[in-house]
Amino acid sequence: MQYTTNYFKIAIDVMGGDFAPVNEIEGVIKAFEVLGSKSNFEVVLIGKEGIITSHLNKYNLSNVRYSIINADEVITMKDDATSALKSKKNSSLYIGMELLRNKQVDAFLSAGNTGAMLSTATILLGRIKGVSRPTIGTFFPTMTGNPTLIVDVGANVDCKPRFLFEFAIMGAEYYKLMLGVEKPKIGLLNIGEEDSKGNEVSLLTNKMLKEVDVNFHGNIEGRDIFKGVVDVVVCDGFTGNIILKFAESFLSFFKHKVKSYADKSLINKLKVLSIKPTLKDIMKEFDYQEYGGVPLLGVNGIVMISHGSSSPKAIKNMIFRTIEVLEKDLNKNIEIALANK
Amino acid sequence: MQYTTNYFKIAIDVMGGDFAPVNEIEGVIKAFEVLGSKSNFEVVLIGKEGIITSHLNKYNLSNVRYSIINADEVITMKDDATSALKSKKNSSLYIGMELLRNKQVDAFLSAGNTGAMLSTATILLGRIKGVSRPTIGTFFPTMTGNPTLIVDVGANVDCKPRFLFEFAIMGAEYYKLMLGVEKPKIGLLNIGEEDSKGNEVSLLTNKMLKEVDVNFHGNIEGRDIFKGVVDVVVCDGFTGNIILKFAESFLSFFKHKVKSYADKSLINKLKVLSIKPTLKDIMKEFDYQEYGGVPLLGVNGIVMISHGSSSPKAIKNMIFRTIEVLEKDLNKNIEIALANK
Repeated sequence: MQYTTNYFKIAIDVMGGDFAPVNEIEGVIKAFEVLGSKSNFEVVLIGKEGIITSHLNKYNLSNVRYSIINADEVITMKDDATSALKSKKNSSLYIGMELLRNKQVDAFLSAGNTGAMLSTATILLGRIKGVSRPTIGTFFPTMTGNPTLIVDVGANVDCKPRFLFEFAIMGAEYYKLMLGVEKPKIGLLNIGEEDSKGNEVSLLTNKMLKEVDVNFHGNIEGRDIFKGVVDVVVCDGFTGNIILKFAESFLSFFKHKVKSYADKSLINKLKVLSIKPTLKDIMKEFDYQEYGGVPLLGVNGIVMISHGSSSPKAIKNMIFRTIEVLEKDLNKNIEIALANK
Repeated sequence: MQYTTNYFKIAIDVMGGDFAPVNEIEGVIKAFEVLGSKSNFEVVLIGKEGIITSHLNKYNLSNVRYSIINADEVITMKDDATSALKSKKNSSLYIGMELLRNKQVDAFLSAGNTGAMLSTATILLGRIKGVSRPTIGTFFPTMTGNPTLIVDVGANVDCKPRFLFEFAIMGAEYYKLMLGVEKPKIGLLNIGEEDSKGNEVSLLTNKMLKEVDVNFHGNIEGRDIFKGVVDVVVCDGFTGNIILKFAESFLSFFKHKVKSYADKSLINKLKVLSIKPTLKDIMKEFDYQEYGGVPLLGVNGIVMISHGSSSPKAIKNMIFRTIEVLEKDLNKNIEIALANK
């Protein structure tokens, strides 16, 4: 494992998320709060300067090392993936990516438009040697207690076997660095466990993963994700994105069922009232903001993205993840892992 | 809507499911119990005669109209999809399908190997005019109270846009007949709502569905399934199968979370004990055996399949669904719907 210097300059798109700039700024404050004087980083806040300043003024900034770079434009969630490249070069997203390209910062973080982040990063930063397509993974909770990384969750909808193969390698490197698992177990998401099962792409990917020195478990099925059968689940971004959004809807569906049960009678209503506090406690187990953000895997530079609705806690954790990724030099490890494969 | 005669002979593969022949036989008994002397059908039980007879003897059979056809072989869940066609022609699955082809029965039902059912049905019965690929759908519960039909859930892993287009039409016809919705709302499962989103196949399918006279809502996302945004969700069998198995694992994941919460302390254990009866009641809302079984859509004959772990209740309901499908002449409706499209 390679280590680099241990003081980092981290650029943050303060205008990206659904609750920007509030959650972004509060997340930054929290990160400095937790690390206190031991914090080994400074942040570059990118966005509308006036807005940033007025929000910062609400906090005690004595421990916060920051600078501000003004950006007049904002890439919204509704903007096209190429908008930053084509028309909004004064956006926080574009400016942040440029700072990273010019090595003025060590990493760039955003809770904004994922598609725009991906295309801007790919064009401005380029790809790591050996990478055909950059990808994005997401951690899912499992029954084992360890999370599983699903990759790709939407970056690449039409995939060749070689792409999936590389997602597996990159995902395993990321999992290894984050979870400390030496040889993460890789599973190929499929419709059956047998090697003969699947669509054309998965059949070929299965073969490719068998031929190299990785901890390839073989095919897994939809039911194996939550079971935590493997550490890294590989799939195309079409399937992965649908799975991700479907999973995100499960809790609200469950809550709806609880409500409809309560609505059936007064007795049911009382029953639900009595179990609610415990149920709420249990639901907390599903809170998955711990990982905060994930890197764009395969681009030449550390770019971290998080969910649009990221809480301050998620933003804070994304900053910590970024420092880990920088300290452990994720991209160098990916390049080495892909060499000669 | 077309109606046919109203007395039916229904063949049942008694050896198919995970709990065969117990659940199959009990399901048949229940079906006759419910309808009593008004039942407008008889069953042909296919399987090992000795086993069937000894199980039947446990029940009062005065209202049960049945005959038995011996089948020495069994297609197991581990058998290849082509096993019935190639080597096991004395299996209950093959014999049942032959009875249907020869019009000796009106429908054939099984909780057995879905792949084998599909390939045997396609070869022996052939396809309905206008159908490129037979398909299988499954009902999912939703927040609206009405189920949504996801089609395909595993029959076709590599799909051309035309296949998905036909799945939409067939699924809508089935939904219409089962739920009494005149123009079921069709959604194309995708990674974004905009028409410009998706992989190559979904982009083309979206265009095709827009050009014909169906109630096409447009693209939907993973999170829209449980919301019940549409009546029929169209996707390829690779995505659909993974979604289905993933969804089936939600409840055990939730139960696991409840257990791990309880294991944290004695107080938690007592809390969980106190909410358990209510939680169990709520969980019943997720019981989705109501639909029991679904037809193979697109084959020339009524073939119904259900989950391998089908309970007697599910088998009973599959029999009732079969009668509905026969009375309403599903296949004729599919042929008409696909004509000139």
